Amino acid sequence: MDLHVTLETPGDSDTRVVRIYHALREAVLDGRLAGGDRVPATRDLARQLGVARGTVTAAYDRLTAEGFLEARPGAGTYVADVALEASAGTRRRRARVGAVRPLPLWETEPGAWAPRDRRLHDLSIGLPDPALFPLEVWRRLVSAQLRRSRMEEATYGGRGSFRLQHEIARLLGLARSVVASADDVVVTAGAQQAIDLVARVLVAPRTVVAVEDPGYAAVHRLLETHRAVLRGVPVDDEGLVVDALPADARLVYVTPSHQFPTGVPMSLARRTALLRWAVDHDAVVVEDDYDSEYRYSRQPVEPLQSLDRDGRVVYVGTFSKSLLPALRIGFVVPPRSLLPALREAKRVTTWEGDLTTQGALAEFLAEGHHAAHVRRATRVYRERRDLVLTALAELHDVLTVMPSVAGLHVCARFRDETVDDRDVVRRAARRGVRVEALSGHHRDRPPRPGLAIGFGGIGADEIPDAMNRLGGAVRSE
Amino acid sequence: MDLHVTLETPGDSDTRVVRIYHALREAVLDGRLAGGDRVPATRDLARQLGVARGTVTAAYDRLTAEGFLEARPGAGTYVADVALEASAGTRRRRARVGAVRPLPLWETEPGAWAPRDRRLHDLSIGLPDPALFPLEVWRRLVSAQLRRSRMEEATYGGRGSFRLQHEIARLLGLARSVVASADDVVVTAGAQQAIDLVARVLVAPRTVVAVEDPGYAAVHRLLETHRAVLRGVPVDDEGLVVDALPADARLVYVTPSHQFPTGVPMSLARRTALLRWAVDHDAVVVEDDYDSEYRYSRQPVEPLQSLDRDGRVVYVGTFSKSLLPALRIGFVVPPRSLLPALREAKRVTTWEGDLTTQGALAEFLAEGHHAAHVRRATRVYRERRDLVLTALAELHDVLTVMPSVAGLHVCARFRDETVDDRDVVRRAARRGVRVEALSGHHRDRPPRPGLAIGFGGIGADEIPDAMNRLGGAVRSE
Repeated sequence: MDLHVTLETPGDSDTRVVRIYHALREAVLDGRLAGGDRVPATRDLARQLGVARGTVTAAYDRLTAEGFLEARPGAGTYVADVALEASAGTRRRRARVGAVRPLPLWETEPGAWAPRDRRLHDLSIGLPDPALFPLEVWRRLVSAQLRRSRMEEATYGGRGSFRLQHEIARLLGLARSVVASADDVVVTAGAQQAIDLVARVLVAPRTVVAVEDPGYAAVHRLLETHRAVLRGVPVDDEGLVVDALPADARLVYVTPSHQFPTGVPMSLARRTALLRWAVDHDAVVVEDDYDSEYRYSRQPVEPLQSLDRDGRVVYVGTFSKSLLPALRIGFVVPPRSLLPALREAKRVTTWEGDLTTQGALAEFLAEGHHAAHVRRATRVYRERRDLVLTALAELHDVLTVMPSVAGLHVCARFRDETVDDRDVVRRAARRGVRVEALSGHHRDRPPRPGLAIGFGGIGADEIPDAMNRLGGAVRSE
Repeated sequence: MDLHVTLETPGDSDTRVVRIYHALREAVLDGRLAGGDRVPATRDLARQLGVARGTVTAAYDRLTAEGFLEARPGAGTYVADVALEASAGTRRRRARVGAVRPLPLWETEPGAWAPRDRRLHDLSIGLPDPALFPLEVWRRLVSAQLRRSRMEEATYGGRGSFRLQHEIARLLGLARSVVASADDVVVTAGAQQAIDLVARVLVAPRTVVAVEDPGYAAVHRLLETHRAVLRGVPVDDEGLVVDALPADARLVYVTPSHQFPTGVPMSLARRTALLRWAVDHDAVVVEDDYDSEYRYSRQPVEPLQSLDRDGRVVYVGTFSKSLLPALRIGFVVPPRSLLPALREAKRVTTWEGDLTTQGALAEFLAEGHHAAHVRRATRVYRERRDLVLTALAELHDVLTVMPSVAGLHVCARFRDETVDDRDVVRRAARRGVRVEALSGHHRDRPPRPGLAIGFGGIGADEIPDAMNRLGGAVRSE
């Protein structure tokens, strides 16, 4: 019997027991040892392996206790019959490893994930600059949360940090005119989970969901995994074209403050039209207010939620843009009628979430660090944005900048609609600039070519050179 | 026009602008100001409110930019028509706030959450003792994670901490004989999210899922929210009665190491039978190994996963019991065939999760703190468990202790099956002891009365008195 026990590596007695145990166990499971086979006497195997007899005995005891071996007094130790059944069953079907398939809707190739290439000028969209985050303050606040009494609070079925709910309600009231008390705020693991919870409680299989086109693919994918039927609705310079909404949509997912990806703010006329549409069609509007903390215009961008008098708007926000994606904290402010269901949905999936981060964030807000950070960061981003816009102005014969007043990126469309914007992106990459094509965010209708230019991940000192190279890519054939 | 602007509170000029802005905006939305109405001249309103004229002008500018007001040169400022539409629409439907209902499956009363009553001896189940957690070590490790380079890693679509995946694979191989490489480990926000992800990729509406009865209600509820049809399967002294599995079950959710709530370990015969059943019925077994780190017997409790040669077992674990629920970190080790779908499901819901906690936990494992903690905590829990078992032995004429070899609680069944265990629990509460009735964990079949006695939340010094009081409650009518 070949046991395949490798004992050359020095290890303590426990380790040797485990190795012998596993070697025998594998031999049984593989069928190399069959039910009724006699295994070597402990003394013999110990000699063969050069270990103490007690080591082998301990391994045999464990296998016996588990039911793999049985000691027959006076006759030695044998492989048990029950183990035989197991090995016969499994040996035969070994080739079927991997027979279990996920549901068809999950049978897609996962998106390839590539680490960022630090050699490129990075004009990617959707990421704030981590260098601006007040890390020392954050470290102090997190450390203060890691005390025993706080650890004891975290359990199952709790409510999460009520203090954070309170601070978020306060922030939303002051900065965003959102009408919410602490009780109305459900804290989530980022906006993506927030939308997942909303989909759980509102989307049944084949529910029609209207989404912006172009729009935010990660949320679209999420909604599809809930078996929603998605319908892309065009976006123009006033935002979502409300007249184009399909009458059977029960849910409308929009980014009215800074449309993703175009950056266009939804006009007030469209906002009121959308709210009226929702009432008339008994639909719910999910408003994703993902990066409107950074505002560059006196024109305020008030959320739909603050205009809603009918309880039709579910407001979703996140600290991933105003602070850092790493915090992974977002929130939902639903109409009261959805609040118990959303709390329950949160509870059954991830209980109350990470109380340490929640507690630290509550303090961060209460001590005014959030407001100070947003003020400071807005100044920095405004400078970067101005540099991008200045450079785009020099390309006005080729590109039209789309109106936007907030956020961490701007978009520009090619005047010539036959341009292949992915070609431009590839040319830009060859010139050392990472930038995104607008057509990649389109869903149903023919894409209109353009570029989405982010300034969260690039310093002001780099932008002129980056835009210069991008300009070269735009103009070259 | 009554503006309801409260300006008594001292505030800076910005605050006053915001208050005036909101007062006018609400007046428009409520219909107190109608489209075409002229609003007071800035000079007049400023005098009336006792503020600088520039303050009122700033508020008007903002309302004009938003489309609520419009300036008619030479004629003053008026409420815009578009605002009229909004207010007409919303005023009429004001009473419908709360018309949006969640899907019927979410229309349940959320479970009431009661904070723990510190005056009681607490024999609740499912919670480790936070006092045993090496908090100083943890604080140091978390602090070390909060550096800028780490903050920059956290983005969208990343993989999470590969180092943590590696350390979990190592831990599982050594401590649990689970066969897994780092690539096989999907880190989640606790076991509940792990099971949620599994349900997403395997449960379609009306998929039949077999669950233990009695069993873990929180997971049952989660599975029901995925529209699974649940079937309770009885549990006896060898664990799940495999012969009673419904033939149409596609998923079987089990806790074989320490059945929840009875504590019974599944026998090897049942384990091999269950695996064979899964192959024969093309089903998947979800193994929730929630608290088996704490073992009190030489009899090892090897996971089903380590017996599986057919890729039928999805192994789920958590650090909520071995460390603290507050960490909210769990993991799934699926068959390879489900790995891409599970990663995708994780990605679309909460991206890569909380990298700070993940990074700190990876170091905690790598530096050996986890193993040391489990060793130390097992000694403490063993002492408590022995005290509970000793006290239960004195009640052997009334209660039969159920076999168990691991975990943070033990169970005992009433010999007299007509006893109402909830009555006993109420009597115990009156005597200052919190304990759980087994019947509360039953689902489909008539409950067999019993008690589940946890020792995670009570010190050894308290146990004799607590058990003495419980004994009184058990024996009294």
